[in-house]
Amino acid sequence: MTFDEHLAQSDSTYLEQLKEILAIPSISGISEHRDDVQRAASWLRDYMEAIGLERATVRPTAKNPVVTAEWLQRRGAPTALIYGHYDVQPVDPLALWTTPPFQATERDGRLYARGSSDDKGQVIAHLQAIASLIAVEGGLPMNIKVLIEGEEEIGSPSLEQFIKDNKDWTQADVVVISDTSMMEHGLPTICCGLRGLCEMEVHLETANTDLHSGLYGGAAPNALHVLVQLLASVRDGQGRITIPGFYDGVVEPTSEERKQMAALPFDEEEFAQRLGVDQLVGEPEFTALERISIRPTLELNGLWGGFQGEGPKTVIPNEAHAKITCRLVPEQEPERVAAVVAEYLTQAVPAGARVRVDLGHVARPWRCDPASAPVQAAVQALEQSFGRSAALARMGGSIPVVEVFDRLLGAPCVLMGFAAPDSNAHAPNESLPLESLRIARRALGRFWHELGERGV
Amino acid sequence: MTFDEHLAQSDSTYLEQLKEILAIPSISGISEHRDDVQRAASWLRDYMEAIGLERATVRPTAKNPVVTAEWLQRRGAPTALIYGHYDVQPVDPLALWTTPPFQATERDGRLYARGSSDDKGQVIAHLQAIASLIAVEGGLPMNIKVLIEGEEEIGSPSLEQFIKDNKDWTQADVVVISDTSMMEHGLPTICCGLRGLCEMEVHLETANTDLHSGLYGGAAPNALHVLVQLLASVRDGQGRITIPGFYDGVVEPTSEERKQMAALPFDEEEFAQRLGVDQLVGEPEFTALERISIRPTLELNGLWGGFQGEGPKTVIPNEAHAKITCRLVPEQEPERVAAVVAEYLTQAVPAGARVRVDLGHVARPWRCDPASAPVQAAVQALEQSFGRSAALARMGGSIPVVEVFDRLLGAPCVLMGFAAPDSNAHAPNESLPLESLRIARRALGRFWHELGERGV
Repeated sequence: MTFDEHLAQSDSTYLEQLKEILAIPSISGISEHRDDVQRAASWLRDYMEAIGLERATVRPTAKNPVVTAEWLQRRGAPTALIYGHYDVQPVDPLALWTTPPFQATERDGRLYARGSSDDKGQVIAHLQAIASLIAVEGGLPMNIKVLIEGEEEIGSPSLEQFIKDNKDWTQADVVVISDTSMMEHGLPTICCGLRGLCEMEVHLETANTDLHSGLYGGAAPNALHVLVQLLASVRDGQGRITIPGFYDGVVEPTSEERKQMAALPFDEEEFAQRLGVDQLVGEPEFTALERISIRPTLELNGLWGGFQGEGPKTVIPNEAHAKITCRLVPEQEPERVAAVVAEYLTQAVPAGARVRVDLGHVARPWRCDPASAPVQAAVQALEQSFGRSAALARMGGSIPVVEVFDRLLGAPCVLMGFAAPDSNAHAPNESLPLESLRIARRALGRFWHELGERGV
Repeated sequence: MTFDEHLAQSDSTYLEQLKEILAIPSISGISEHRDDVQRAASWLRDYMEAIGLERATVRPTAKNPVVTAEWLQRRGAPTALIYGHYDVQPVDPLALWTTPPFQATERDGRLYARGSSDDKGQVIAHLQAIASLIAVEGGLPMNIKVLIEGEEEIGSPSLEQFIKDNKDWTQADVVVISDTSMMEHGLPTICCGLRGLCEMEVHLETANTDLHSGLYGGAAPNALHVLVQLLASVRDGQGRITIPGFYDGVVEPTSEERKQMAALPFDEEEFAQRLGVDQLVGEPEFTALERISIRPTLELNGLWGGFQGEGPKTVIPNEAHAKITCRLVPEQEPERVAAVVAEYLTQAVPAGARVRVDLGHVARPWRCDPASAPVQAAVQALEQSFGRSAALARMGGSIPVVEVFDRLLGAPCVLMGFAAPDSNAHAPNESLPLESLRIARRALGRFWHELGERGV
């Protein structure tokens, strides 16, 4: 029996197994689901053991356990680390779900459940590809370690320490992650770039107290006016950031890269319509897809000051506050960008006001090397399975663990994701197309053969 | 016993009475304080009855009651209407109060409490002067009606209808109001001009939901960016309002008026120091005193949108809000100014965003006749009590009712206020110097005698 035949024959069994773990409400962000998180971890350990992986173990951390397993019998062959997560997002508003979020339901060729695409469905696709490889071939084409964590949806607070504490075990030649989406139905997609991040909070103060707008209005500085003028000055009318040094280090795309991006499926009009806006914004010299993936941003995430209650209040507020995050692209240094933004805001503030900027966390931007063996192996495996050339797309979000693996293991990451563009991750009616699940299993089996042959 | 002796002897009793009404959190702008507003009205009625005023009554309106009382036994003598308000401003931010806002506390010769200066303290000074006159002289030097409302801090929405419905009762030869401040400690001050007011709330919307800043940042409009850019554009760098038509109708001061204003005690440096700012702001061609009294303003009173909780949130907010009030001077039309501001904001908003402006209450600007008998009687009484010539000053605040009395009763208004320049009305740690309270009672007693003799 071939690998593909084994997958086909196991299809209904494999689907039932997936439904089992989808039934466990392992919501990491809600503490009353602590037992469910533990149950999901135990289920995974038992499952990995059952399919022929070795030393399947639930390993405690400061919060939710990491589940690991391995198959290391291919002496001299390269070793891959598969990363995924078994925790899921909360489900509210529950009323918007057509079928219960933890009772996986097939409908119109899709499997509906919380975690179906993010990330249990993709984790199980990996494990079932491994299961069929072991069943048919008696082993794997290369050495594989599996690390499935339970805190991704709350920012992976324990993962870095876990990797540091288990440096030898986590060491690998390549890290493979399936936790992203395809750009459109049927288009296999490798995420080849992620934006970085820096966070800050701005605290602006003028007078020593709120003031009566009748008695002082006209001569006293108003913290809100100062803040809006200060924050308006960080952008020009077209969305370019005007802070000196903000763009330092930004790698401009080559004309070849821009041509490749322009060929990716992205309909600006449909995108605007989905957001409910009559016009997209941003740097006019870049396409919308470029602006949301390979260009840095500075976004106001929150702003407050003065009276927000019911009715009017004739006050001149003496305090104003803002939360800002920047999305960063290679080769911007997050700490340096945070510093130039903070310096600009504290220097540009006019007389009569004082500004303090508190810096928060940072995440480095990330790019893959499209020519590397693991990416090329993924391209090959995905093309053979989907019958279409794989898209290599840089994405606008940040996946902090990618940067963590990059930094701590020095191993390249391959991000091939199988969620649909309309999978509704984090939202009601999350789903995964069943066809994507089947093709993903095939593609992953081919990927390990391809990578085993090429080497890393 | 003389009037002054009776006041001196009653001092501690009078202070305790004031503390009683200051303890009632009669905040008219917050609906959950509705019962407190009623309690304050009842307390006032009982108090006015107790001191010898007649027909003390809590009179319902569409919203908060008006409390009235009278003493009309001096046949043929002129009749004055005393106006004040028993409602107060909200107290946030509560954390900035040194002592609880509704637990009046004596400290360094001042009484600290919300309403101590605006306006309960001044209302009670009036009533206690009347109490001592009645106690010592068996009656008043002229006829007096008292009208204390409960909606001043929310724009007196019911007062105009109340006056219209009670035209005969409210009819008077002069209206006396104590709801303003002295220009400096010990300088008796008659307010001879007030700024008008118009209020609005700005609601700005971009996309149909909050958006993920990684997936959409760079192409999706951010409501906060749009709002700060829109609001920054209403002023130039020096504080002039740039909205077309905003200054239409503004009466420029004559050189004589500017000379008189320059002679008033006003130290810009001390003023800035008191506010805790290193520099005052505003139109450079006017003095600070002119800017806060005879020039119009546009102030942001509140601003909010996006995430304000603890920590970062990588969201692109789709909503942003602002509260705005303008202070207006003769002969600006409040409705017209509100209309030009609203039109500017809705027109200047860029593509990708929508703005709605809700218009609030308006108040017309006002000026007095310095040569009139009531103003001259006040000048006399204040000089005798304070031992200093009274200042006749145009002030920057708005007392909409002054314009209402002017228009509906055709009676001149006299505004003699006893709050201190640093009384912090509308702000945390509002206070009234106890010495001002004592002299005010004396001055008010003299004023009624003086005016009774002069006639109106």
